[in-house]
Order: sequence, then C-alpha cells, then structure tokens
Amino acid sequence: MTKTIGIIGAGAWGTALAQVYAAAGNNVTLWAREPEVVAAVNAQHENTVFLSGVKLHTNIRAVADMTEGAKADVILLVTPAQHVRSTIRTLRGDLGNKPVVICAKGLETATGKMLSDVAAEEASGLPVAVLTGPTFAGEIARGLPSAVTVAAAGIGTAEFIRDALASKTLRPYVSTDLTGVQIGGAVKNVIAIASGIVAGKGLGDSARAALITRGLAEIARLGAALGAKKETLMGMCGVGDLVLTASSMQSRNYSLGYELGKGRTLDDILGARNSVTEGVHTAKATMVMAAQMKVDMPITAAVDACLNNGVSIDDAIAALMERPLRSESA
Amino acid sequence: MTKTIGIIGAGAWGTALAQVYAAAGNNVTLWAREPEVVAAVNAQHENTVFLSGVKLHTNIRAVADMTEGAKADVILLVTPAQHVRSTIRTLRGDLGNKPVVICAKGLETATGKMLSDVAAEEASGLPVAVLTGPTFAGEIARGLPSAVTVAAAGIGTAEFIRDALASKTLRPYVSTDLTGVQIGGAVKNVIAIASGIVAGKGLGDSARAALITRGLAEIARLGAALGAKKETLMGMCGVGDLVLTASSMQSRNYSLGYELGKGRTLDDILGARNSVTEGVHTAKATMVMAAQMKVDMPITAAVDACLNNGVSIDDAIAALMERPLRSESA
Repeated sequence: MTKTIGIIGAGAWGTALAQVYAAAGNNVTLWAREPEVVAAVNAQHENTVFLSGVKLHTNIRAVADMTEGAKADVILLVTPAQHVRSTIRTLRGDLGNKPVVICAKGLETATGKMLSDVAAEEASGLPVAVLTGPTFAGEIARGLPSAVTVAAAGIGTAEFIRDALASKTLRPYVSTDLTGVQIGGAVKNVIAIASGIVAGKGLGDSARAALITRGLAEIARLGAALGAKKETLMGMCGVGDLVLTASSMQSRNYSLGYELGKGRTLDDILGARNSVTEGVHTAKATMVMAAQMKVDMPITAAVDACLNNGVSIDDAIAALMERPLRSESA
Repeated sequence: MTKTIGIIGAGAWGTALAQVYAAAGNNVTLWAREPEVVAAVNAQHENTVFLSGVKLHTNIRAVADMTEGAKADVILLVTPAQHVRSTIRTLRGDLGNKPVVICAKGLETATGKMLSDVAAEEASGLPVAVLTGPTFAGEIARGLPSAVTVAAAGIGTAEFIRDALASKTLRPYVSTDLTGVQIGGAVKNVIAIASGIVAGKGLGDSARAALITRGLAEIARLGAALGAKKETLMGMCGVGDLVLTASSMQSRNYSLGYELGKGRTLDDILGARNSVTEGVHTAKATMVMAAQMKVDMPITAAVDACLNNGVSIDDAIAALMERPLRSESA
C-alpha cells in the first residue's frame, strides 16, 4: 500500500531515509531548512549539499514549509538533537495523533534529557517512537542492507512503525526500551570520539578495541541506573551502533577524534564542517546525567574534559591508563 | 621480582607475549617447533618466520626441547587449539602443580570441547587459566597498550596469573567464567569470517555492524546454554575481541572471509598461508556444540556450510536475509 512519509530534516540521514522509502514505492515529502537544498532535490534530484553523488528518486518532493512535511501518514524527525524541542513546538498543531519517529541521536545539552522526554514535554500524549542503529547514510541511500531498532513505550506503536518502515534493505527490530536505545545511540558518539583519538594517536587497534569495550561498560552502567535493559545495549542500538561509529572515518564523531589525536584543534575541525558532530554536545549532556545518577563514566569524562574544559589529550589518556583495574563486569 | 616465563609455541602470538614479558624484565624461554625459528630467535633476535620485523629482547631464549619450556614459574600454552591436547600430554610429567595458561582460542574439532576441558582430561587437577582478549600480535609486540581477560575456575588462580602477567602495556582483567571467555574467544573467529565475507562482497559497514551484532547474539545464546554469564560476553573476550577480529585485515579470520567474498576458494587461500586460521576449525566444532545444546546459530551455520559443506556464499547470504525477524534480545 502506498503511504506518505514526511521527513523533517534533509541532512545526510534524512535524505537517505527519504531515498529508502521512495525506493519502496511511497510518496515522500522532505522538508529542508536550506532553500538551495529544496531547489536541488526538486530540480536535480540530488541533495548536493549533504549527500552529493546519490541520484534521488523522483517521488521525493522537497518542501520549504515545515508544516507541509507534517501532512503525512508517518513523520520522521531527522533534525539535529538540539533542534528537536523547537521543531516539535512548531509542528505540534499539525501532528494530531500521528506517531512521530525521532531519528536524531543525542541528548538535549541544556537539560541533559532524552529526546523522547523532550517530545513528551512539548506535545503530551503524542505517540513517539525512536529509530536508531548502525547506519551510514551514504550506504543506506545506495540501497545496501542494514538493520535498525524501532522503540516505543508501547509495543503496539513500535510494531506500527516497524510495519510502516520495514523495507527490503532496512530491517527494523522492535523494542519497548526507549531509555536503552536512546542512551546507546547518544553516548556511543562520545565513545566514538575517544576511539578516533586513540587511532589518531597511533595506539593501535587492540587498544581501540579495549577502549570500545570499556566504553560499552560505562554506557551500560548509565543505562542500568536509568532503568534500561542490558539486552538493549547488546543489540543494534548499543554494540552495533558503537562498533560502526567507533571504527570508521565515515563517522563524523570518529573522524573528529582522529583529527584531535593528530593534533588539530576542536575549533579548527568544527569550523571546516557544514554538519553537526553530535558527540561534542552529547559529552556535556552525558556528564550532567552521570552526575545526577552518580554513575562513574571515565571515558566520557575524559572526552568532555578535552572538548569542553581545555584538558590536553595526553593528560587525559595518561589519567585513564593509571586508573586501578576494576572488575570487568562492574 | 624476576620470574621465569615459559612459552610453548612461537607463532606470532607466542612471540609477542615473549616480547612483553622480556620487556618487563623477566627471563623468557620460548619453545618453537621449527628449528629455523629457534635459530633465528637466538642468533638474530627476530622470529623471521612468524613475526618478522620486530627486534626481540635478548633475554628471550628459544629452545627446541619442549620440556625445557616447562621449567618456568608460569607456563603459557600458545600452540594452535587442535594441538593443546597433545602438548599437555607431552608435558604432563614436567608441569607438577604449576599453573598453565591456555592462550589459544578455539574448540577441539574432534570433540567440540573447550580447551580447559581438554586440559582437565589430560592432566586432572592441574590449575588451568585462560588468557584471551582483543590483541593483534604485531601491536602487542611493539609495546602498544592492550587489555585481556584472565579466567580460571578459582579466583585465586586467576589473580595469581594476573599478578604474574600484568605489565605496563598489557592490562589483565580477572574472571571466573571459564566457559564464557572460551566461547567468546573461539566463536568470534567464525563471526569474523562472516564479517570478512560481507566486506569482500561490498555490502557496506552498516551491514557488517548488523552482522557483528547478530553474531554476538548467537554467541551469547550458546554461552547462556552452557552456563556462561552474559556480562562476560560484553567484556574484553566477547565484544572486545569480536570488534577487533571482525573489523581488520590484520585478523587471519576476517581476511580469509574477505578473500572468500572476493571469490577466491578456501583451498587457494589456506594453501598460501603458513599459519593456522582457527575459525575454519571452530565453525565445525561450534556446530557440534550448538546441535548438542539445541541452540540456533544461523551465522555460524552459514559459515560452516560455506567452508565445509560446499554451499555457495551467495546462497548462504540470501538464506540469512530471508529469515523472519526475531526479537533482538532472543
């Protein structure tokens, strides 16, 4: 059955999702903030700004009016994490009771809150789901196979979204652990920055694998304190997304860490980018959350100290290596 | 305190461990099966056959008589997995009550047994530990930082080995979950072959991350059926080792899969190698174990079918993609 899918946000990931659902035969409305993106998608069938080189389907229609994007059967919110609150505030009157799928990964920096909680604050009673997992936009747009997790508080909402969004190439697994999937999806960006730093410093893949493992342990500790299930973090939105993001120059977070490890400054790296590197914001927000929950997160703290408090990378690494060994499962 | 460390097996990993412990100031005896390795290590201080390009410490002494290697305070067994039984049988009279640390990763193909069980059968009452984790021999030999798990049935044995083997660059975490660490260390080689196939086929990093995640899920299912703890498989010998092995051409298992994905035949690839690719044997042994325990392991079964039963890679991938979606935590 032909559905209409509304996608709010035409960065690389929003555009890739538009391509998947247009390829599956749906009508897709793609809202872009930038007029030049709207023009390029409609005239040239390419997002020349954020996903150049991928020929887009002709049944993707780009729009400049956000409320146009909300006139669909299913709405995917693919703005940067820090814009989720203002976007829902803008759209609230147009959403009715239609489910909204948050596709951003991150926490709100100002409050340290998960995006599903932000959405609930802005539009109470709105059915909200989260789509997250190990995906690089360029690969998904080219139709390569992948798997994601779709989570909602009620299994019925999760299954409705799964059935609406399952395609031949994108396999959604359902979950009701909204907390676990969001903590996994958000904090892995911070660990990916650390992983990039280790690579940039030339410390080797073995050290990087050890760091990823200890990173997962601290994500799981935070998740447990917030009520997440351990199983969730062993799934697509935990291990899967962490493995992908923390191992590839295709990741903005890993590549940012890599450049930092090579000695470039944060301002220098961010100044040269036209897209958001979520982990920079998430490091700060995670430390707020970790302090509230009294959870020890040494790798996240080290990344935050380097990014936001002027600590040198060498000092941060030395401090991590000198910590006493703790039990692996702690 | 200066210790003597006996290392049985001078492949890349045995030689790297010899280097770590010689660098820490210990006297190391390294047994090699090949006379040319013994000669090269003693005369040129280099293992020209299995770890060329690394200058070895002068207090590594290579020996051709295996019982010489057993005259040490701590004995590391670093033979291929299929030789653990015969090696312990040979050394049994020389070991006394000294702990033996198994450093091979794999299952015994003929019996489907874990190597600690093989050791117990051959030398009942011998204190046995297992050292495993995410390490590439070349990196460890060059002194790059890394972390491993040391497991033994009794925490006292594990801690004794940890204290004997902790070095500035190699951090051992202790565990008493012998089953979990061995299942993780063995079966990840099979998943790494599958991951290499996905890469060789050009299916993308997103698909590879999804495969690694589902691979971990089936390792955890087998582990749970055998009594392993889930936490163990989230640690160095599970997630850590899987991430490392399933993502790098430095891994013999991943690179074997990659070549298979590119269309080379198994005989062709193995014929060009002078070292053992454990995952080929482990796939078969794991299927024996999975059948005994009635555990569903679709990725391992697919790898075994391709390697050992003549199924084509394309048919195996198609069958995996067509399986119904199961719950992520199942």
